[in-house]
Amino acid sequence: MLLHWSPKSPFVRKVMIAAHELALVEQLDLRRTVVRMDNPNLALLKDNPLGKIPTLMLDDGEVIIDSGVICEYFDTLAGGGRLLPVLGPAHWRERSRHAMLNGLMELLILWRNERDKPPEKQTEAWLKAFELKTLTALTRFEGDQPPIGGDLLQLSEITLGCCLSYLDFRFADLAWRNHYPTLARWHAVFSARPSALATEIVADG
Amino acid sequence: MLLHWSPKSPFVRKVMIAAHELALVEQLDLRRTVVRMDNPNLALLKDNPLGKIPTLMLDDGEVIIDSGVICEYFDTLAGGGRLLPVLGPAHWRERSRHAMLNGLMELLILWRNERDKPPEKQTEAWLKAFELKTLTALTRFEGDQPPIGGDLLQLSEITLGCCLSYLDFRFADLAWRNHYPTLARWHAVFSARPSALATEIVADG
Repeated sequence: MLLHWSPKSPFVRKVMIAAHELALVEQLDLRRTVVRMDNPNLALLKDNPLGKIPTLMLDDGEVIIDSGVICEYFDTLAGGGRLLPVLGPAHWRERSRHAMLNGLMELLILWRNERDKPPEKQTEAWLKAFELKTLTALTRFEGDQPPIGGDLLQLSEITLGCCLSYLDFRFADLAWRNHYPTLARWHAVFSARPSALATEIVADG
Repeated sequence: MLLHWSPKSPFVRKVMIAAHELALVEQLDLRRTVVRMDNPNLALLKDNPLGKIPTLMLDDGEVIIDSGVICEYFDTLAGGGRLLPVLGPAHWRERSRHAMLNGLMELLILWRNERDKPPEKQTEAWLKAFELKTLTALTRFEGDQPPIGGDLLQLSEITLGCCLSYLDFRFADLAWRNHYPTLARWHAVFSARPSALATEIVADG
């Protein structure tokens, strides 16, 4: 399988952590693919018209997107039921929790794109809304954070870990640990896992 | 079940079409919920920290998001296997196709938000990228559009139909039918279905 990949995307990191947790990394052929909001990658658009990464290409030519679907697909390759429950109320709880955290990740990307604009192009009300929603989500997971033990991470936990690491990477000024001590302790355990260490996003130079 | 709902959201329309197709509408208690990028809905944030609609509240207090997960959940309530195949390669093909079209819908919302800004705040390169990605996606589905018959719509078809209707509603200037005749014929059949007629998004005034 070919994975359109980049070392700095939190969505790519999410599927790479899933692949590590499920021992599927060696089946992946990683192709470094650069994407930017202001400069679509034409080669990638042939595989995925949205021009987003990760994009997974199966050997038979099928395309699998998006990051959540790729993680669930990996789970079935590994036998199923490891990253999320297969059936029943627990399945929908996990799918919803994942959607919430994946939506937070999307919001963080939009927030970063907005605040990286020249000041005269920024929309103040959007920046305020992004911050409010981020803090509301973190407050929810501070009181409702998933447990972590010796077992495999769940899909929502992988996504939560990648969101918190992305806050460190792009929103250090938020100092989120000061306000969310339970998440901070959880994130320290997450970050020490081999799958997290192998996929850490590091700043340039 | 309570559904945070609005008459103009294409994501809400998508789950309402699913509910109509699966004969679940009478189980839904619709609550009109207004969301705006620049003015978060505080009541909605209590249920969904991302402040997005649709948000489904189950009678036991569980929250189900996002639109795709809600549609899949509805499918299981209706017995399963109707809006998308339950297992195997066809399941992943349908999930990916849905993710592509759902991503197109998200992109159309971002595009509209960007072009509704005062001109001096718009980012020209983003507008160009949104247009290129939209046309690339439509070209793909013009050549690869799902068939429609007397059977139930698939999840990706519902999403495709809502995207095309949203283009009519907010991007009439694109005149998409001039360039995508196969999709235009398909959309005419889609739009005549009772589920589409019952959920049509109409302009104000």
